[in-house]
Amino acid sequence: MNASLATLTDCIAPELAAVEEAFQRELSSNLNCVNTLVKHVNRFRGKMLRPCLLLLSGRAIGPLIPAHIRLATVVEMVHMATLVHDDVLDEAELRRKGATINHLKGNEAAVLLGDYLISHSYHLCSSLDSQFAARLIARTTNTVCEGELLQIDNRNNIDLTEETYFEIITRKTASLCATSCLLGAKYSNANERHQHQLELFGLSLGIAFQIQDDILDLVGEEPTVGKTLGLDIGKGKMTLPIIHFLSTAPQHHRKLLRSLFTNGEPDQVEKIRNLILPSKSIEYARNRARQLVEGARQSLADLADSDAKKALDTMAEFVISRPM
Amino acid sequence: MNASLATLTDCIAPELAAVEEAFQRELSSNLNCVNTLVKHVNRFRGKMLRPCLLLLSGRAIGPLIPAHIRLATVVEMVHMATLVHDDVLDEAELRRKGATINHLKGNEAAVLLGDYLISHSYHLCSSLDSQFAARLIARTTNTVCEGELLQIDNRNNIDLTEETYFEIITRKTASLCATSCLLGAKYSNANERHQHQLELFGLSLGIAFQIQDDILDLVGEEPTVGKTLGLDIGKGKMTLPIIHFLSTAPQHHRKLLRSLFTNGEPDQVEKIRNLILPSKSIEYARNRARQLVEGARQSLADLADSDAKKALDTMAEFVISRPM
Repeated sequence: MNASLATLTDCIAPELAAVEEAFQRELSSNLNCVNTLVKHVNRFRGKMLRPCLLLLSGRAIGPLIPAHIRLATVVEMVHMATLVHDDVLDEAELRRKGATINHLKGNEAAVLLGDYLISHSYHLCSSLDSQFAARLIARTTNTVCEGELLQIDNRNNIDLTEETYFEIITRKTASLCATSCLLGAKYSNANERHQHQLELFGLSLGIAFQIQDDILDLVGEEPTVGKTLGLDIGKGKMTLPIIHFLSTAPQHHRKLLRSLFTNGEPDQVEKIRNLILPSKSIEYARNRARQLVEGARQSLADLADSDAKKALDTMAEFVISRPM
Repeated sequence: MNASLATLTDCIAPELAAVEEAFQRELSSNLNCVNTLVKHVNRFRGKMLRPCLLLLSGRAIGPLIPAHIRLATVVEMVHMATLVHDDVLDEAELRRKGATINHLKGNEAAVLLGDYLISHSYHLCSSLDSQFAARLIARTTNTVCEGELLQIDNRNNIDLTEETYFEIITRKTASLCATSCLLGAKYSNANERHQHQLELFGLSLGIAFQIQDDILDLVGEEPTVGKTLGLDIGKGKMTLPIIHFLSTAPQHHRKLLRSLFTNGEPDQVEKIRNLILPSKSIEYARNRARQLVEGARQSLADLADSDAKKALDTMAEFVISRPM
């Protein structure tokens, strides 16, 4: 976990450790080859953002119970599954500064390992007493899949609207963050208003997180961000700065960007970056992310003060101040 | 559905129609692009073996209830997900005589469509009253994934033992058949003995089914079987006839087979087929499948006579008498 986030999560440190343990335990198999492959998942492990959201949302309401640990493990496993399958999708060369499953073992292993993770996440979920969480998680994974499908349907669509862009990122990224916060609150017996506020917090934070991810892909530095950048352009993914540029920049700049997208030259990413950087489109995307974070923080206003509430607040800020 | 199987399933015809309807309903989305992609799944629809096993097992015990329809839809959806993801795995050129998702939309769409199917199968499962089915389905999908992972771990392993071969096919194919029968029985309030017998029936039938599939891949005719054959060899999958041949044929034949596997010449499949056909290895595999089918049929002995029991019995026979 990132050092600056780690201090934020002091108040849930034992629970996060329990999540790590539950994660490994759930995935262990009596087949050696499976255990060997599962080890590669750890290369994808990152900030534990979703477990943190779930545990902090729970703690902001009341005490944490064993179901919180289990559900925090479930949301992390779901997220890991999407990362592993994204690797099939994106042919990324680096992620979390390590070799990917994809490159270690080929597309087939990446598909199956993702399936193994998603299967075990539902398995863990089905061990709870009630069906509530299972229903919510399955509804969320339906939504995530739809977001990803909408995204590839709009690949290379240079006429993509902001509205559809937000639809895509809300489904593929924000929905699981919202569900994490809602589950945390629900299993601490939050009242309906607090449940709704925390769900909204997760949703706004998740959208802002994805906008920031998209900005970093365009203008970040690989060694700092820790994964291959410029992938969105290579994969024909329209992101907020590009959508804004295409609808506001001078006519000849827009034309140039369109031709750069269509031609796919080797220095395409560099040229697009140089075209957009001097414009106001990066700033525009940053402002949208900032507004969302402000909205997220306002969703917390109604909660009683606590270390957990403070951590959620700082975490929202961190989402858009991540190193470039 | 295959015509000869259709007559077998007259006694569950309305329920099978309800499964088809539930399948379409569960997958329908408010996003057009998702609905367009989902239509391609129908190209994969085949014999509905697993829903038939579930519904007939239920009917062999007592009346069918709505949960049977839902669960029959779930097992079909799980199976479809594995077929769609197998398409990423196998790079098959034809399946069910139609273009594959893979070729229509690329690997990414195939991965996501499989994920969408598996997510919706759990979603449907989570709508039942109890967690029993969700737990069993998730445990089964864990097992299926392990079987697939064990299979790719043994790709090109010309020393694969029969024991590991059976471990692979039991997990990847037979486990879902066994679960289908068990769920059918359970939701008709079968006693423990009948539950166990029907689970065993599904397990034996499933293993026999996969052996027959492997035989067809080696010696079947594409127009009759309805999918690309010879894929197992191309993908380095050791199947029962080949494992038997490698441990029983004269030394120089074994040497030849090993070199054919390693070299990967363009007419590799043809040469391997011609080498194995005159041997006793196909016959050996057929006998193993036949023994399993006999065992499956014996598992039914204790059930009261009914149309459903008769259909299960004939279905077991059909598994190994499928057209070549």
